[in-house]
Amino acid sequence: MTENAYTVGDYLLDRLAELGVTEIFGVPGDYQLEFLDHILAHPQMTWIGGANELNAGYAADGYGRLRGMAALVTTFGVGELSAANAVAGSYAEHVPVVHIVGAPSKDSQAARRIVHHTLGDGDFEHFLRMSREITCAQANLVPATATREIDRVLSEVREQKRPGYLLLATDVARFPTEPPAAPLPRYTGGTSPRALSMFTEAASQLIGEHRLTVLADFLVHRMGCVDELNALLGADTVPHATLMWGKSLVDESSPNFLGIYAGAASEDSVREVIEDAPVLVTAGVLFTDMVSGFFSQRIDPARTIDIGVNQSVVAGQVFAPLDMGAALDAVTSILKGRGVTSQTLPPAPARQTATPPARDAALTQETLWDRLSDALTPGNVVLADQGTSFYGMAGHRLASGVTFIGQPLWGSIGYTLPAALGAGLADRDRRTVLLIGDGAAQLTVQELGAFGRAGLAPVVVVVNNDGYTVERAIHGVTAEYNDISGWRWTELPAALGVSDALTFRVSTYGELDDALTAGADAQDRMVFIEVLLGRMDIPPLLTELAQSASAANAGKISPS
Amino acid sequence: MTENAYTVGDYLLDRLAELGVTEIFGVPGDYQLEFLDHILAHPQMTWIGGANELNAGYAADGYGRLRGMAALVTTFGVGELSAANAVAGSYAEHVPVVHIVGAPSKDSQAARRIVHHTLGDGDFEHFLRMSREITCAQANLVPATATREIDRVLSEVREQKRPGYLLLATDVARFPTEPPAAPLPRYTGGTSPRALSMFTEAASQLIGEHRLTVLADFLVHRMGCVDELNALLGADTVPHATLMWGKSLVDESSPNFLGIYAGAASEDSVREVIEDAPVLVTAGVLFTDMVSGFFSQRIDPARTIDIGVNQSVVAGQVFAPLDMGAALDAVTSILKGRGVTSQTLPPAPARQTATPPARDAALTQETLWDRLSDALTPGNVVLADQGTSFYGMAGHRLASGVTFIGQPLWGSIGYTLPAALGAGLADRDRRTVLLIGDGAAQLTVQELGAFGRAGLAPVVVVVNNDGYTVERAIHGVTAEYNDISGWRWTELPAALGVSDALTFRVSTYGELDDALTAGADAQDRMVFIEVLLGRMDIPPLLTELAQSASAANAGKISPS
Repeated sequence: MTENAYTVGDYLLDRLAELGVTEIFGVPGDYQLEFLDHILAHPQMTWIGGANELNAGYAADGYGRLRGMAALVTTFGVGELSAANAVAGSYAEHVPVVHIVGAPSKDSQAARRIVHHTLGDGDFEHFLRMSREITCAQANLVPATATREIDRVLSEVREQKRPGYLLLATDVARFPTEPPAAPLPRYTGGTSPRALSMFTEAASQLIGEHRLTVLADFLVHRMGCVDELNALLGADTVPHATLMWGKSLVDESSPNFLGIYAGAASEDSVREVIEDAPVLVTAGVLFTDMVSGFFSQRIDPARTIDIGVNQSVVAGQVFAPLDMGAALDAVTSILKGRGVTSQTLPPAPARQTATPPARDAALTQETLWDRLSDALTPGNVVLADQGTSFYGMAGHRLASGVTFIGQPLWGSIGYTLPAALGAGLADRDRRTVLLIGDGAAQLTVQELGAFGRAGLAPVVVVVNNDGYTVERAIHGVTAEYNDISGWRWTELPAALGVSDALTFRVSTYGELDDALTAGADAQDRMVFIEVLLGRMDIPPLLTELAQSASAANAGKISPS
Repeated sequence: MTENAYTVGDYLLDRLAELGVTEIFGVPGDYQLEFLDHILAHPQMTWIGGANELNAGYAADGYGRLRGMAALVTTFGVGELSAANAVAGSYAEHVPVVHIVGAPSKDSQAARRIVHHTLGDGDFEHFLRMSREITCAQANLVPATATREIDRVLSEVREQKRPGYLLLATDVARFPTEPPAAPLPRYTGGTSPRALSMFTEAASQLIGEHRLTVLADFLVHRMGCVDELNALLGADTVPHATLMWGKSLVDESSPNFLGIYAGAASEDSVREVIEDAPVLVTAGVLFTDMVSGFFSQRIDPARTIDIGVNQSVVAGQVFAPLDMGAALDAVTSILKGRGVTSQTLPPAPARQTATPPARDAALTQETLWDRLSDALTPGNVVLADQGTSFYGMAGHRLASGVTFIGQPLWGSIGYTLPAALGAGLADRDRRTVLLIGDGAAQLTVQELGAFGRAGLAPVVVVVNNDGYTVERAIHGVTAEYNDISGWRWTELPAALGVSDALTFRVSTYGELDDALTAGADAQDRMVFIEVLLGRMDIPPLLTELAQSASAANAGKISPS
């Protein structure tokens, strides 16, 4: 064994590279420092150190959403648990992240040594057991089976699009092995030919000569079926919508794009077309409280073809195993083969180009998001934190080529700030635009400096409305627990290491306008805009959801 | 049921108040907002909102170490998992923290609704199961048994001095109940009279007329046996030491205090007295890698009485159940009753009062910690982060009445910054002194603003040595993964909301001296001192431990 022998750690890195990973996120710790040397030495890999592990985990999630695979390295105990919220979020929202945890040597483990970063009881599997709840596959690597186990976990991450967990002891990481002899095999049993043929028959019967309407959502993106979806949408005149979760999955500038469906919280024009569709295809849809107007969707199963990840349902009948892509392709073929063309949709009423507010008008949630959505250009990746930013932007039609990222199921405030770092690194040619409230930004603010270090130039909009407005909307309008420490936001980029940021503090429409214009001209610098808004200025959609959330919290238990 | 009915939530708060809790740490979330109303309304309780949940958990830990009980409130999923590292640290280091997690209503749970902050699979016990690995007792509260289960979990937290977990659904928190009818019962079966008598007999025989030497550590503090320990140390001339973990457990200005024992890493004068003691009492001691010079302690069991939490061992013979306090009292009685007095220790060699460096001399780790330890005054609570701060201060003798807090087993960097907030709130009459490196402070820096909000005036010393020096000591001296973003530290207090902080940036002895003098005069303001030190200036103790850590990471696995 020589110093430069090819190791288990190298094998893992080569597999990650094969899956498209070129940046690895994490925080150093003494149980993985040597593995980090191998990252630095790997020709395709760049190490991205986070200010803390939660942030690194969020960054990996943001990267994974764009790149289709991500990797996070933390140390045992302290590091991995700090990232647990981020990893669970990746699980909830179907983002493939490989979580690699550096562990004490197998030698220390066998001797049950009471070493640092453990609970002091000689049990080295506490955190592995915790990881089982929030990852789709786990392995405690040992030399004899390390490469096989790495392949198993990475395959599951790739197939399920959910995080996996690898416990990599110092002495296992450096154990000699050979490079992969062949690409990671793909699972090929996802579609039964018989199920596909029966599905096609049933779908064809249901569709008949009806106009098809499509409601697509985030799982289409996660399972890599966007091309198949677009083929379906192009096979005829297909009116379609997404939920908020999958916003930007389809080209929102298309004349056939209806808007965002959110159950009873939808605009009527969207709700009616979706709910009254003669035949509706729902593709990759999961109705959660916040994207369904609190479960107010009205979808008639008898008129619906539901295309899921591994199975599809036609008017209540289940067909499986059946991959999403195969099912989408089948429906496309039905449309193309039926010799009927649906009528072109009546042209949508021209969007009311509201007169822009006066330059000295105080900004409101409405004018802020209107102006911001106009400022977006093709290629932008917009991350909207799960407060007024997300619900304020969700209803705006985005330009073609803009990607929108939110986290409406997991809903961890502060997520988007580090996720924007990850998204920026996943595709350096696309400028990220971060929209976040002051309460949320306080959770993860220390990652601001990393943008500068990484050479990224995002637009950062901090909505300063003096506390947790999303919580005020639900409960405790003036309660002190919804207050936060008052910060001097515009001083932070420079203090945290981004010395050349352009900063603005705006409270009027004209000031915002000037800041965005200046920001568009400064493509190579961070543009940091603090927007002052009223505490209780809340987007209408959020108001509606907050009332439902408050009612749901009341529950039904009552004393007899 | 009226709006003002006494609820399960009120019962929990009354029990916490009974156990000495008057501040509750946490971050608001919609599954516990209504419970927070009850905190605000409770006459003894104050809500302390953290910038994020990890920080709130660390603050609760710091509070629990001084107050003997602490409470943390987070929301389901996102909140609780963000705090997992802090809770696990409290477990590892025996700190009693009650973690209360606001959950979706039992109604939503029963319907397996896919609501926000869940994994989307209708399973509401993922995080409860995770908590089992890092808390000593857990309960998923339901109305019928809520008060009984609260009592069970709180009792375990009090007895074991480890965190407990309460899952409190919105509708359970508001369920009506009655206030506690009697104080929380104490467990009284910790000592068997027969075990005590046999222990006393065995200890008496072993001690005979020998001089007794004591090595005490942190568990004496955690189990509330400091008075019993001091009685033992005062019963004769008893030379004694602590490990680093229990530093400041005893009065370090006592002539019988030897210093810090750390196995082979001890000063010879300490090591010899402990290891060669005719009879040694070890009390509340757990030898971990970082406090034992990597398991280099040489303690002869045949000459040792080991007093543990629930059992004691005399020359290899186990006596149980036997509470620590009862065992300490028994040994004290033996000393007092034996009619023999040990010789007074020879006076310790006068401490070399090194000539202070010249005012323009560049600061070093050595001169920094020397000057800082001189600046401490009775009442100070010093928190030293687990890097050069902890290992640099550990060897310094502290003034009487100074409390020292570190985290050498769990070793989560960044812990001390929020923990200092908690410690300051646990006893507002004692000024906290926070010693932390730049790499560590980046993990948790956003909590700085909370000191101002809480009206606390700590002394904050940030050791700026340009990265993770503790990691450089172990591996990767110049590796880029040990670098961090460069921050303008002295701008941060004001930017993060502490507008009246006194700030200093010092690199010479004279500048440090001036800053500390000014800080002593400004007892009502935060004093923030950035100290510039060399990257690879490392306290000798840390160098030694780092080499051992590096060797341990190498392990023994090798290919045949």
